[in-house]
Amino acid sequence: MKKLDMLYEGKAKKIYKTGDPEVLIVEYKDDATAFNGEKRGAISGKGVINNRMTNYFMRLLEGCGIPTHYIEELSDRETAVKRVDIVPLEVIVRNISAGSFAKRYGVKEGIVFKNPTVEFSYKDDALGDPLLNTSHALALGLAAPEDIALIREYVTQINHFLKSELSECDVTLVDFKVEFGKLTGGKIVLADEISPDTCRFWDTKTGEKLDKDRFRQDLGNVEGAYAEIARRLGITV
Amino acid sequence: MKKLDMLYEGKAKKIYKTGDPEVLIVEYKDDATAFNGEKRGAISGKGVINNRMTNYFMRLLEGCGIPTHYIEELSDRETAVKRVDIVPLEVIVRNISAGSFAKRYGVKEGIVFKNPTVEFSYKDDALGDPLLNTSHALALGLAAPEDIALIREYVTQINHFLKSELSECDVTLVDFKVEFGKLTGGKIVLADEISPDTCRFWDTKTGEKLDKDRFRQDLGNVEGAYAEIARRLGITV
Repeated sequence: MKKLDMLYEGKAKKIYKTGDPEVLIVEYKDDATAFNGEKRGAISGKGVINNRMTNYFMRLLEGCGIPTHYIEELSDRETAVKRVDIVPLEVIVRNISAGSFAKRYGVKEGIVFKNPTVEFSYKDDALGDPLLNTSHALALGLAAPEDIALIREYVTQINHFLKSELSECDVTLVDFKVEFGKLTGGKIVLADEISPDTCRFWDTKTGEKLDKDRFRQDLGNVEGAYAEIARRLGITV
Repeated sequence: MKKLDMLYEGKAKKIYKTGDPEVLIVEYKDDATAFNGEKRGAISGKGVINNRMTNYFMRLLEGCGIPTHYIEELSDRETAVKRVDIVPLEVIVRNISAGSFAKRYGVKEGIVFKNPTVEFSYKDDALGDPLLNTSHALALGLAAPEDIALIREYVTQINHFLKSELSECDVTLVDFKVEFGKLTGGKIVLADEISPDTCRFWDTKTGEKLDKDRFRQDLGNVEGAYAEIARRLGITV
């Protein structure tokens, strides 16, 4: 499979066309940004880890019945995926208070929720990805009611499968962000990535942060944390 | 009924104790604030209009089967109400895009929604009353699931009854904010106020704003707009 024109360059990934209009190639970069692009840097080797880890989770979820855009890993930084129209909603599932949740509602990090929260934000950098609820998403015409219902169902299952997988290597899944897209026929599939860039992982025994919060909060050993999660999951990088 | 100690002074109202621990007296002020207290002023005669109009709507809604905290109008600015523990959620129902919705999601005012949106914000001035969804409210322990379900049901009905009442005098109900409280026995009732301070009212024929947006946006004739809504509803002030 050959990379043709670059279609899009995001904060952490580049997307290329291929000879097949229904297939794209994702290339993972080492660039890191935080706080809606206000903080910028690089995490050496991150692209390789995020590519391999995302693919690891996508294959796991496919096996559990969650349809994804994943096709095939092409190299250490490149993966072939199905072309989708992205649903302009970031979907965040939280098991434990942290990050923007803790800040927004004035609570400390580490509160374990009885039931996970599911929140949507409107994917729009210029507006700062504002939080919205289901009725807002429908009023703005961002998705159909049945798509939102399906996305809710999928993220609940994804949370269950990821938590379970991670708990086996002593990692607590605090929260994660996913995106969905529509295939040409209209089918909703999981897209984007699942990595320490988009999830909060805490060491279950020590509480140590093993994710992008080490970059956001200048905690040091950022590369080490990404590598540690990969190592625990048995992912070779 | 006699006013005893002042229990609380808010932006637009004072609340007094009475001899009965289950009864309070609300006194409506002319003070006006906007943008979470950043803009301050006064709207002459507003207290009288908001008192009378709130009571008019509370009686109407009671007649339609919505339980409220209303007991009795005592004077042009004072009303006896049942003491409640306020549920710390502001509940906003929107029929048409305006105000913070239009700003937050980058859309123009005046988009008529196919279905009304219902949103909650966490009543906390220091945090800027942040938006939240049902799963957040539950995770934060702000209300029980059955209370939130009941509040959703009530606001849908309130929207229906208010829209219908207002349409008869050529007023379009754009959106409104209400609060609920719990009586000593745990029963949820509508509390707070329903007035041009808490609703957006547009003249159905001309689109003219007849609510607090005239104060927020320095549109002039603020007092006239409040008086016009009262006049159309047949409320004597």
